[in-house]
Amino acid sequence: MSDPHPDTPVGELSEGEILRRILDRLGPSGSPVGPGDDAAVITTADRRVVATVDTLVHGPDFRLAWSSPFDLGWKAAAVNLADVAAMGARPVALLVALAMPDSTRISFVESLADGLRAACDELAPGCAVEGGDLTVSDTLTVAVTALGSLDGRAPVLRSGARPGDVVAVAGALGAAGRGLTTLFQRFTDASGAPTPVDLAQLAVDERSELEAQLRPSPPLSLGIAAAEAGATAMMDVSDGLVLDATRMAAASGVCLALDSRTLGDDPRSALTGGEDHALLATFPSTVALAPGFRPIGEVRAAGDHAVLVDGAPFDGRSGWDPYRDWDSGSG
Amino acid sequence: MSDPHPDTPVGELSEGEILRRILDRLGPSGSPVGPGDDAAVITTADRRVVATVDTLVHGPDFRLAWSSPFDLGWKAAAVNLADVAAMGARPVALLVALAMPDSTRISFVESLADGLRAACDELAPGCAVEGGDLTVSDTLTVAVTALGSLDGRAPVLRSGARPGDVVAVAGALGAAGRGLTTLFQRFTDASGAPTPVDLAQLAVDERSELEAQLRPSPPLSLGIAAAEAGATAMMDVSDGLVLDATRMAAASGVCLALDSRTLGDDPRSALTGGEDHALLATFPSTVALAPGFRPIGEVRAAGDHAVLVDGAPFDGRSGWDPYRDWDSGSG
Repeated sequence: MSDPHPDTPVGELSEGEILRRILDRLGPSGSPVGPGDDAAVITTADRRVVATVDTLVHGPDFRLAWSSPFDLGWKAAAVNLADVAAMGARPVALLVALAMPDSTRISFVESLADGLRAACDELAPGCAVEGGDLTVSDTLTVAVTALGSLDGRAPVLRSGARPGDVVAVAGALGAAGRGLTTLFQRFTDASGAPTPVDLAQLAVDERSELEAQLRPSPPLSLGIAAAEAGATAMMDVSDGLVLDATRMAAASGVCLALDSRTLGDDPRSALTGGEDHALLATFPSTVALAPGFRPIGEVRAAGDHAVLVDGAPFDGRSGWDPYRDWDSGSG
Repeated sequence: MSDPHPDTPVGELSEGEILRRILDRLGPSGSPVGPGDDAAVITTADRRVVATVDTLVHGPDFRLAWSSPFDLGWKAAAVNLADVAAMGARPVALLVALAMPDSTRISFVESLADGLRAACDELAPGCAVEGGDLTVSDTLTVAVTALGSLDGRAPVLRSGARPGDVVAVAGALGAAGRGLTTLFQRFTDASGAPTPVDLAQLAVDERSELEAQLRPSPPLSLGIAAAEAGATAMMDVSDGLVLDATRMAAASGVCLALDSRTLGDDPRSALTGGEDHALLATFPSTVALAPGFRPIGEVRAAGDHAVLVDGAPFDGRSGWDPYRDWDSGSG
């Protein structure tokens, strides 16, 4: 069987031919049973597995004018690896459900596979794509399941924060949100439709914020470090610090009091910008913070507000809710 | 917070409100950490987990004129539970990634959750939805990840069939395919668009074939029985017996010789009809078949053809390949 031309639409290939092109890009499986059977068999270090799924949909979650297929594969992996890391677990395997129009070029699928693999190699070495599913859809959709091993540790939940704990974060806050603002302000046409990104138009800072949005690299190995240092609660910041801190406060039955002076030059974007996938954790005040974490506030007993910023309730839009905030008509 | 009206579009609700409606339907979690944290924590009986994902997309995989939301949830669970059972494993958890238009009514989402739960309760008692993801999409898409426990057994792969083994099957073959034919022949309009099903037009047999297509109930508990009886290879028949037997033969490096006289009154539909999710397995000729399995052929050494039917290569269309067979223009 000769290789198809890179521009060949997947609709002209069999499922087996498409799969073979993907599997060639994914590298060796680390599992007893990897891709190709009815299911994969994944090994964990104890009798528990951490499991999460997150979906990227063309339109609400990415635009092909802005994201390369490599970026898309990378981000689909990264956002799920972050959820595993936020439990204090070590990512061990991804399953990828790819639904795509049959006009999609095979080279697009190959680059997406390259991005999945590169994100695993950089953010969670030892983790690989071990299974998946191909489907036809009018809407390009990438649903990634990530599995992780706790290696004998207890999972770190959202619900464990206690009054007196230190609130801390590892990774950037606000950069990905500023990158998204740049995309909407600089790379859309008069009708609001996305236009290709011209990096030459951007300053160095803007480029790095764009990369934080399109190809995020949160410090995921610090999730295990936080668990080992005694973190009482942890989650990744996917929808904005205030909104996600509100969720942690609600799950824990406490108030998270944040200090905006710890949030850098642009505290408002740090408080509201989503998609950085930094790790938000709480630590007992009696222990040293895990390496890579910086304090941003303290846990207080529950009161009138789940989150306080500089002692007052936050007065702005606190983050991104996909069902309230996405208008498909503007896609 | 008062309950929303059943007709409320999800676009008018927050993600938290939609999630609460779903979680209310799913029943108690059987896991140490169920829905609500960054990831679920699933317990298995040993240090391995079986993991698979399969996606149903509106258009190629289901039509809302034909499938109720309950049917859709049921089928999305069933096809994934079948993949776990076909490894000889016990399903323990599902993760559900639901991407839907924001015009979707909340009652639709609730019925879909009811169908997911009912399929777990009937086909794989003890398995429940333990996590998931909600996304906005123009195309209704349900991607289900199923996780299973091997309980100390070796997984049964596609690659273990050996010359001399008996080929056997558990569950119906062809019924779901005949149900699909009925839908296309009887419940489409002049343009080919699907029209609502009127059960009063159908004979008893036709109704049961329709149910096999829309709400399949393969005998999944027999997967463990097959593993315990010494099955050398196993898979579920999702794309048609000849096509799936060809895959097993290729993985095992053998020929599967089928006897059409064992395939009932309509051997052609048994050979080519997809979506029954019956279990296809091979057993050493020296052991008794697992209960519920019936012999349909024998394994031979590899030859010119991966599959023989009554001693000759099969001369028809052998099954369903989504990339070659689905024309989105006819959706």
